[in-house]
Amino acid sequence: MTAPDGAAAPDVAPAPDGASTPFLLSAFEMMTPVHQSPGLWRHPESRIAEFDRLAYWTRLARTVEDGGFSALFLADVLGLYDVYGGGIEATVRGGVQWPVLDPAVAVPAMAAATERIGFGVTASVTYERPYLLARTLATLDHFTGGRVAWNIVTSYQDSAARNLGLDRQIPHDARYDLADEALHALYRLWEGSVEPGAVRFDRAAGVVADPDRVHPAAVAGAHVRVPDAALTHPGPQGTPYLFQAGASARGRRFALDHAEAVFAIGPTPAHVRRFVDQTRAGLTEAGRSADAIRVLAMVTVVVAETDEAAAQRLAGYAEHVDVAGALALWGGWTGVDVAGLDPDAPLEHVVTDANRSALAAFTEDPSGRTWTLRDVAEFVAIGGRGPVIVGSPETVADELQRWQAETGVDGFNVSAAVRPADLERFAALVSPELRRRGVLREPEPGRTLRENLSGAGPALPADHRGHAFRTAG
Amino acid sequence: MTAPDGAAAPDVAPAPDGASTPFLLSAFEMMTPVHQSPGLWRHPESRIAEFDRLAYWTRLARTVEDGGFSALFLADVLGLYDVYGGGIEATVRGGVQWPVLDPAVAVPAMAAATERIGFGVTASVTYERPYLLARTLATLDHFTGGRVAWNIVTSYQDSAARNLGLDRQIPHDARYDLADEALHALYRLWEGSVEPGAVRFDRAAGVVADPDRVHPAAVAGAHVRVPDAALTHPGPQGTPYLFQAGASARGRRFALDHAEAVFAIGPTPAHVRRFVDQTRAGLTEAGRSADAIRVLAMVTVVVAETDEAAAQRLAGYAEHVDVAGALALWGGWTGVDVAGLDPDAPLEHVVTDANRSALAAFTEDPSGRTWTLRDVAEFVAIGGRGPVIVGSPETVADELQRWQAETGVDGFNVSAAVRPADLERFAALVSPELRRRGVLREPEPGRTLRENLSGAGPALPADHRGHAFRTAG
Repeated sequence: MTAPDGAAAPDVAPAPDGASTPFLLSAFEMMTPVHQSPGLWRHPESRIAEFDRLAYWTRLARTVEDGGFSALFLADVLGLYDVYGGGIEATVRGGVQWPVLDPAVAVPAMAAATERIGFGVTASVTYERPYLLARTLATLDHFTGGRVAWNIVTSYQDSAARNLGLDRQIPHDARYDLADEALHALYRLWEGSVEPGAVRFDRAAGVVADPDRVHPAAVAGAHVRVPDAALTHPGPQGTPYLFQAGASARGRRFALDHAEAVFAIGPTPAHVRRFVDQTRAGLTEAGRSADAIRVLAMVTVVVAETDEAAAQRLAGYAEHVDVAGALALWGGWTGVDVAGLDPDAPLEHVVTDANRSALAAFTEDPSGRTWTLRDVAEFVAIGGRGPVIVGSPETVADELQRWQAETGVDGFNVSAAVRPADLERFAALVSPELRRRGVLREPEPGRTLRENLSGAGPALPADHRGHAFRTAG
Repeated sequence: MTAPDGAAAPDVAPAPDGASTPFLLSAFEMMTPVHQSPGLWRHPESRIAEFDRLAYWTRLARTVEDGGFSALFLADVLGLYDVYGGGIEATVRGGVQWPVLDPAVAVPAMAAATERIGFGVTASVTYERPYLLARTLATLDHFTGGRVAWNIVTSYQDSAARNLGLDRQIPHDARYDLADEALHALYRLWEGSVEPGAVRFDRAAGVVADPDRVHPAAVAGAHVRVPDAALTHPGPQGTPYLFQAGASARGRRFALDHAEAVFAIGPTPAHVRRFVDQTRAGLTEAGRSADAIRVLAMVTVVVAETDEAAAQRLAGYAEHVDVAGALALWGGWTGVDVAGLDPDAPLEHVVTDANRSALAAFTEDPSGRTWTLRDVAEFVAIGGRGPVIVGSPETVADELQRWQAETGVDGFNVSAAVRPADLERFAALVSPELRRRGVLREPEPGRTLRENLSGAGPALPADHRGHAFRTAG
């Protein structure tokens, strides 16, 4: 298997010489056997069987910090993928985002093992109670010294809904309306309830905190009611740094309203360029600075000492792909079940009304390639829905610089197929090359994640809607 | 101020010579400026202003582990105390269990800093969704190597209820009925969903986990519905070790059904003896072994090189008591507001119909002592509702042995007035004396918390109701 034709952007010109805007790196991970690469846990270098040991994660955090990454981002799901074959068999057998551990509780331990890197924690605004979520994230902000980000998700799986007290999903757009209301409650709790400096342990005055600087949240929304003061004082960032990755129209609008960083997933620079341009324009329309959101493009990187060795390495990865696991993952994303269809027949022979739309990206491949379901699975299994960059450190650096120049992204969310080997190899081989070229924008110790990613202060900037919730500090 | 007359048990005889059953130690803490001793944060040795830094807690964990403690237990509340004066002013000014951080997220970091000690995490079965709570606690069990306990609370504050989606409290007994249902769901998720060994990363077979060893939880209760399989596999203990501290009749019955350890709080050995006897008898009636529950008595220890120095030290503590803060704490526990009453008048002059029952323990002091509200505050502020043991290491060891002999408790839950000094001093001064006498039952590395506390295996014993939920492993 190779990355599909076109994935490395055939439709744009090479990067101009001298295009060397420094960019950010984030590591895209998940506390589960298979994040985006079903079957790759079988690779001889995989150590992901240790995913349920804390030391695996503290070591990975140090690895990517040493590699100049700014953040380790932890995805999450709250249900099992059960679309493929109408059950969980391929999901369980393949370890496809299952078992999945709670990412939040590992963060302080990873922070204690590092000095500069930030940690992105996924938590569902649909299923967490705002009053408790505010406290958990504030606690993480305290315990990391301001190095935590919250990845806001609304949770898209029916399997999550039915195990969490709902009979079925809240409809998509209503989920985002509820999320808007929850965010307002959270801003009240993080920005408007306990003023910065209110907790001061003044022995002489006998005051732990000034009562006149602690305010009721006074949130009385249609769905969210939080009348009282927050359970704790805000951490160094106040509101934790906010990630969001919604791809729908409503999700994009939510991101323009709230996010400080978003992920772009697209197979070509042209796709990502459109996303970046829409984001910048949308921000301006929304009254925020055009660069108020950091855009990170997802990439999977397979690196070796030479281009040839890297190509061989990728070929070796393909031997381990779990086709059923990949189709279970793809089924979860799309809601389409292709179990029972011939994996080796050209797609046009297995297209039905039910799967036509989900398969359109492949049946209508502009390169003219004829895909099979096995090809789709292999495409998903290495790189997910983003590009796979394969080559020597120089080639990978060239490609990342080219992507940056052609798309205008602020950096990359680097995913690994063989874990943790691909991130270890990136840190060992690619990061030194990026440093040599002066294009790696690294975090500084003693600064919050927001400072390191935005370049501005530790708190929400004045053009963010959460800023208006602030009480005098 | 001294500990109130009678607090050190005037109504029982001295311990018999040779009574040397080894006992367990747990440290009773909370991630907040004031846990049980309002005002003592002002003591010159207090470092509790660092409570919002992770290093404070990892260091404390090492301290008590070095002192031979088996567990560090973290209390929690989900609302502000707002009874005293009808508001939060005394609570905020005094830092009375506010701000309060999320205890769960610090546990893996504390586990990484230690080898033997277990961690008790308080979480509310009323407000946490069982499907997510199961995952969080299983994750903690994995990341601590089986060293986590869950302290099951149903949350008693109206202030928690109204900020967490309810207009007011669920009535007390109904909360426990709901808790029973939630526990059954949790047993299904921890014991019955993913069989031990099902997750095995078999490269040759291409199997992360065996689908036929993963079962739907199939919980369809009146209030709790969890149809699907757990989000993750169980940790080394399966069900985490279960603490519970309910004092009501319904709460006691719940403990007899579910708990593996409980806390006893009583001012005299006679009080605690009754509690222990009732627990042993209740366990037998419930079909469990009479020693199936470990009973730990709460004590506050003030130790110095000599008895005289310890008495002086306690006198110094009294100078820092925060009377309003103590009455805010007591008001939260009892629901009775004594703001506006003369703190220095004999209690009989300030008793009203509203506070009569809550003050009865003091107005009807069998020693005949006449109390004032200030006395009540000072009593609460050093030692909470349990005894204060004051003296040299030898005296403290004598007293702990006497309490153990007279009450039959399995150990002590040691609370600190000046934090972390009192626990550091206990570890430095009392623990060596207990070791010299051979009465300190210490945890062993490489064992789970359940093994270290119960002396049996890592999983729930056969006479625990959760055991029946187990599927073949």
